Parts: sequence; C-alpha cells; structure tokens
Amino acid sequence: MVVTVIGLGLIGGSMALALKEKGIATKVIGVDRSDTHAQRALELGLVDRIATVREAVDAAQLVVLAVPVDALSGLARDVLERVTTQVVFDVGSTKEGVLAAVGDHPRRGRFVAAHPMWGTEHSGPEAAVRGAFTGKAAVICDRDGSDEDAALLVEHVYRSLGMHLVYMGAAEHDVHVAYISHISHITSFALANTVLEKEKEEEAIFELASGGFESTVRLAKSNPAMWVPILQQNRENVLDVLNEHIAQLRKFKACLEKENYDYLLELIGQANKIKRILK
Amino acid sequence: MVVTVIGLGLIGGSMALALKEKGIATKVIGVDRSDTHAQRALELGLVDRIATVREAVDAAQLVVLAVPVDALSGLARDVLERVTTQVVFDVGSTKEGVLAAVGDHPRRGRFVAAHPMWGTEHSGPEAAVRGAFTGKAAVICDRDGSDEDAALLVEHVYRSLGMHLVYMGAAEHDVHVAYISHISHITSFALANTVLEKEKEEEAIFELASGGFESTVRLAKSNPAMWVPILQQNRENVLDVLNEHIAQLRKFKACLEKENYDYLLELIGQANKIKRILK
Repeated sequence: MVVTVIGLGLIGGSMALALKEKGIATKVIGVDRSDTHAQRALELGLVDRIATVREAVDAAQLVVLAVPVDALSGLARDVLERVTTQVVFDVGSTKEGVLAAVGDHPRRGRFVAAHPMWGTEHSGPEAAVRGAFTGKAAVICDRDGSDEDAALLVEHVYRSLGMHLVYMGAAEHDVHVAYISHISHITSFALANTVLEKEKEEEAIFELASGGFESTVRLAKSNPAMWVPILQQNRENVLDVLNEHIAQLRKFKACLEKENYDYLLELIGQANKIKRILK
Repeated sequence: MVVTVIGLGLIGGSMALALKEKGIATKVIGVDRSDTHAQRALELGLVDRIATVREAVDAAQLVVLAVPVDALSGLARDVLERVTTQVVFDVGSTKEGVLAAVGDHPRRGRFVAAHPMWGTEHSGPEAAVRGAFTGKAAVICDRDGSDEDAALLVEHVYRSLGMHLVYMGAAEHDVHVAYISHISHITSFALANTVLEKEKEEEAIFELASGGFESTVRLAKSNPAMWVPILQQNRENVLDVLNEHIAQLRKFKACLEKENYDYLLELIGQANKIKRILK
C-alpha cells in the first residue's frame, strides 16, 4: 500500500525505512515543512517522493504523523479533514493533547493514537536508522475511539515491525511516560549542564569519560525542538515526577552532609530493586 | 610474571583475565576475604590458585589491590609491610585517601596509585568479563611518589591492556571523578528510587521501558558495598557536584512551573553542548 509519512526526522524517517523493509509500504510519500529535510530524506532514500500534505494524504492508504507534539494536534485535525477511507496514526510521545484535539472530529474513527517506545538522542533525516522499533513496545491509546478496521491495520503494522502491543488510556500513558522517558531526559539535560557549568576542564572529561557517564548523559544531546513541546504538553505529570526526583536526590545529599552511611547503604539497596524491572 | 590480585570482584576478576590474556601474568594468585568469592573465582578460571595475603604477596612480582576503597588504605599499608622488590598498584575510584595512607610508608615507592576508568553495574566474580579496559583511560596519580621502575611497569601493564594513560594529582583526580562518575551513579540511584516510590505499576514500566530509561537507570544496579565507601571518601567533591546538580534541576522545574518555555529551550540547548565532549 502507499504510505504517507509527515515529518521526516528520527522517528518518521526510521518508520519510513521500516515500513518499506517489512513490505507494508510499496511506496512512501514524504512531507516535511522544511524543504532541506524533505530533500535530504529523498537523497537518503527514506521516501520515494515529496508532496504537500493534501496531495500526500489523497494518494495514500495509510498516513503516519511524525511531527513534534506541538504541531501534532493541528496537523491531525487538518489531515482528518481530507481523509475518507484512509487510516491515520501518530507516533507522538504524549497522548492527551492529540486525542482531545480530534475527539469531536467526525472522522475521529480513522485516527489511531500510537506511541512506539523507541528513539535515540539524534534528530533529523540523517538520524533515521534501519531496524528501529524491533523488540520494543508500541502503545495504542483509547483504541475504542478508533474504527475497528483502522485499529486492526495499525496493530498489524506494529506487529510487523516486531513490536509488542500495550493498551492504555491517554491519561495513563502520559503518567507512565513521565516516569519512563521524560524524567530521564530532564536528568540528563541537568547533568550535562552541571558538568558544563562547573567542570571547566573539558579536556579532562573527554579523556576520562567512561561508559557510566556516557550512558547517563547521552540523552542530553536530544533535540530541544522535539523535547520542549513534550515537556510542555506533559507539564503536570513531569512536575510531579521531577519534584519526587529532587526529593530523592536530597536524601542522598542529607546522607553525605550528616555522614549517615547506614542510610546511604539503605538508599542504594532500595535503588538496586530496579533489577526487578530492568533485567 | 606471577601476579597477585587481592579482591576478586568485577574489577579484580576482569583484571586477572586481562593480565592473563595479554601475556603479562603467567600465573595469577587470588586473594579474597570471602571464601565463597575466592572459590567461585577459582571455578570460573579467573585465578590459578587462592592464597592468603602474606603468601600471595611473597610469591608475586606484581600485586593488584582491587578491594572496595574503605578497605584499600589499610590493605595497601599491610601489603607494603611485606613488600621487598614487588610492585603494587590499586584500581580504586578515589585517590586522596589511599595516597595519604601510604604517604609516609618507607616503601611508598613500590606503590603506584592507578584508576582504570572502566566498570559495569554488576558485581562479584561472576561479573568479571574478558576484554575489559580496552580503549579506556587509566589514570596514574602522583607518579612522582612511585619508584621509576614501579611506575614504568604499571604503565606497561595498562598500555598492554589497550588503555591510554592520563596523569594527575590525587586531589584533581577526585574532583574529576565526582563529575564524571560519582554524580551519574547518585542520579541513577535517585531516579530508580523515584520510579520505584511513585510508580506503583511496575508491570507498565517493565513493558514500556525503552532504551533511554535503561541507559539512565542501569547504574542504579551498582553494588552498595562498593559505592558507599566511594561516596564517603569523596564526600566533599560529591556534595559540591550534587548541590550544583539539584540547582540545575530546579531551573527545569521553574521553567515548567512558570511555563517559561523560551528558557526551557535555552537550557536544553545548553545541555546539547555536551556533544563537544561526548561524540
């Protein structure tokens, strides 16, 4: 089938490659508001041709919305305006906003709210990689609001990519991702700023930085144009988690200030219980 | 040459394997205060035989001290008491403590203070892996205090493991590792506790956890018996960095509370500068 991907960055580009590779898309039409990105996506072979939103939606059976979440709600409504029998799904990191935006649309049923739990700290068409998504979870939110054929098609697509499906409401999704994804990014941004602010000897960091530093700080390279809208849309949940995280850090601080190493041992022992979750 | 490794956990065990593999050790004698660990190290082939500290030091030309840093200072002095021509080096994550402890010892010159910048979140003899250390930095501290032949041997050992050498004073080392290693661990411990405390639906985390979460939280599995002494010994530097880190997190919090997304964009843009350091 012909698939249109709107937004040709890390996720949209990788999705285009995966849909081709798995034989779901016979042809991929790309749309991007940046001409440079669109041209680059074409050169990299992510898409077969470039079109406007209108042309691309009309020509496709499946439409993927892969734009930053601040642009997503408006785009979803615009696309639903053009849609007849096409199926539309998004890949955004927050779900309450977009579902509220399309909730009263007469063609709401053609839309499936999805979030494939995959990403890297890189961005733009060059960041697109083959073999993304495999083995990860794809969340489908508020499935009841989608037409049965639309939901079945999107489920088929994600299963074909090697993903396992998880179902939840939009509000529940947004709470979970605050814990699982958004707070990790804030921690990483803040850690990078801590090091850059206080540690003037960058040469030393560069020479010494080992695996542990790299793995906790690599998310700090993530694109602000993607992350500001995510944090904005999920503001309340993120603030809840961030307040708790600062409170947890203060416990470590108090242990060191008061030289209470028994309690420090206990705190680290508690943290070790993450082994139950992360194998 | 015959090498003795005291402390047969993650680092000592991996060091034993590497020294054998690179042809530096013809034979490795292991010492561990836990009989279970010692026995396990023998079964896993990390060491050729087990001995007491006294026997093992007498029988070796090179002695590696790979015990947690709270046990290191006392052990270093005990070993120097037995040493005649042997060379002794440690692999500890903090350096001021051990160097202060051996500073006035008549055989201080036989000791080389070293810190190979490699590790994982796992612990014990089972955590030992082949091919560790390669491509990472090895720090040598206060080289002037070591005899020339001792320093040259240890430099040869680390170069043979494929490491590049970095030289600094102990105080400088301890500041840098607070930024590069110790704060990442505290952040990871606190992040694990944040999630475990507030997010009761562990099933959901397990299903959704993606690469970003895993990489920022994996250090939280690290061994408390190793990390409490490190944080204790490097208390003042760690507190400085932790205070700065909490201040940086508060800036993110203020942005969200006040809905100041321009400043949030700026903060993330600053964090992106870590690309200069982490390729």
